[in-house]
Amino acid sequence: MEGHRLIDQALSTNTEIEEVWITNKSNKSSIGEKLLHKIDNKNIPWSITPDKIIRQISDSLNDQGIIALSPIPIYKKYNKPPLQSIYLDGVSDPGNMGTILRTAAWFGIKSVFCSSDCVDPFNSKVVRSAMGAHYYFSHFDSVLYEKLFSDLSKNTIKIVGSDISGQSIDTLDLSDSLGWCLVLGNESHGISLPVRNFITNMVTIPGTENIESLNVSVAGGILLHALTSLKVVTN
Amino acid sequence: MEGHRLIDQALSTNTEIEEVWITNKSNKSSIGEKLLHKIDNKNIPWSITPDKIIRQISDSLNDQGIIALSPIPIYKKYNKPPLQSIYLDGVSDPGNMGTILRTAAWFGIKSVFCSSDCVDPFNSKVVRSAMGAHYYFSHFDSVLYEKLFSDLSKNTIKIVGSDISGQSIDTLDLSDSLGWCLVLGNESHGISLPVRNFITNMVTIPGTENIESLNVSVAGGILLHALTSLKVVTN
Repeated sequence: MEGHRLIDQALSTNTEIEEVWITNKSNKSSIGEKLLHKIDNKNIPWSITPDKIIRQISDSLNDQGIIALSPIPIYKKYNKPPLQSIYLDGVSDPGNMGTILRTAAWFGIKSVFCSSDCVDPFNSKVVRSAMGAHYYFSHFDSVLYEKLFSDLSKNTIKIVGSDISGQSIDTLDLSDSLGWCLVLGNESHGISLPVRNFITNMVTIPGTENIESLNVSVAGGILLHALTSLKVVTN
Repeated sequence: MEGHRLIDQALSTNTEIEEVWITNKSNKSSIGEKLLHKIDNKNIPWSITPDKIIRQISDSLNDQGIIALSPIPIYKKYNKPPLQSIYLDGVSDPGNMGTILRTAAWFGIKSVFCSSDCVDPFNSKVVRSAMGAHYYFSHFDSVLYEKLFSDLSKNTIKIVGSDISGQSIDTLDLSDSLGWCLVLGNESHGISLPVRNFITNMVTIPGTENIESLNVSVAGGILLHALTSLKVVTN
C-alpha cells in the first residue's frame, strides 16, 4: 500500500500491516509524524528508507515516500448467493476498478465478483484508488458467471445491468425480489453478450444526450445509491 | 485531444477540429478507418504521422496513435447566476476534474465554475476524462466565489455543499428555492473554510462507516442525479 491517506485509512480499519518503509523527508513532515505515531501505537515495525528504494518499489510517478506491506486478505469461498452484490464484467481501468470497490464498501456491499478479464484487483493502482475497501469485503473473487447468475435467479435475486437501452433507474421496482446483483461492464464495450443474457433488469441513468455515456465508476455510484435505497421483500 | 473515443465523441457533437494526426498502425485498424471516414466527411485535414512524433506530443504513456487539434471553446462571460451550476473548490486530480465535467454535461449542467487552485481544466488528462464535455458548457470559468455566491443568495438559489456532517441528500428539500449550485471540494481537505461560510445546505450521502469517504467524482455524480430530480420553484 502506498501513500499517507491509504495507510491511514488501513490503520483505522484494523487492516493487518506487517511493515512500513518511509523516506527521511516523509518522516519529518507533520502528516508523516502523525502516521508514525499511529504505527508505533500498533507496534508495527517501520524504518527510514532511501528515496531511491521507495521510488523503485512504488508504482506511482509521484510517490509520497511511504509504503506499507499488508497481506492479501483471505475471503470466504462463495457458496450461496448474497442478497446484495456487484459483478464486474471486464472492467479494465485500475482507477475505475478501485473507485468502484471504494464505493461498494461505502454502501455496505460485502460481496464483489469479477470476470476473469477484469484488471487484476490487487494491482497497486486498484489498491490505491480503493482506499482500503479490499479489507472490508467478505467475498471478493472471480466466479463463473453462469453458476452465480443461475443461483441468483433461483433465489429471486434480480440481476441488474446498466445500459443506455434500459428503463430509468428512478422507476425501478424490486419489491417482489429478495435482493439484487449489480452488473457493471467494460468501459468501451459495456456488458458482454453472454452476461447480458442473464440480466433481469436493464436500467439507465436519465440524462441529456449531449454526451455518450457516464464513467463506469460514477454510474456504479449512482446505481448503488439508488439500489441500496430500494425496497425489497426482506426489508 | 487524444484517443479514438474522445475524438469520435468530439466529431459527433460538432466540436471544431482543425487537424488530425494518426500513426500508420492506427490508420490501418478498423476503429481508425471508421474514424477517418467521419473525419473525411467533415473535410478535416489529416495526415499519417510517425509513431515517434505522436508519442512526443501525447501526454499519455499508452497513446492510441491519434491526436486532434481543437481550439479552446469561447464561453459566455458570467453576468447573472445560473439556476443550476457547479462550483469546484480546489479539485486537484485531473481524472476527477474530467470525470466531474463529463457527469455535469450528462446531467445537462451548462455552467461550471472553478476556484483558481483547481487543476488546469484544459490539461490534456482533464480533456481526456471529460470526453468532450468542454464543448457542451455555456459558462466554464474561474470566478471570484464571493461575487458568485452573493449573487446566488440574492436570487434564492441554494448553495449545496457535500460534507460528512451534512443532512442526508435523500431528505433535501429545495422546493422554496429557484435552483442550486453544487460545491465540490478538494480530494483530501474537502471544501475550503472561506467557501464553507457561504454554503446554505450541507448534504451527505448516507453510507456505512467502513470507509472514510467517497471519491469526489462519484459523490458529485450521486448528488447531481439527486439534485436534477428535485423539485424547485421553477418546475
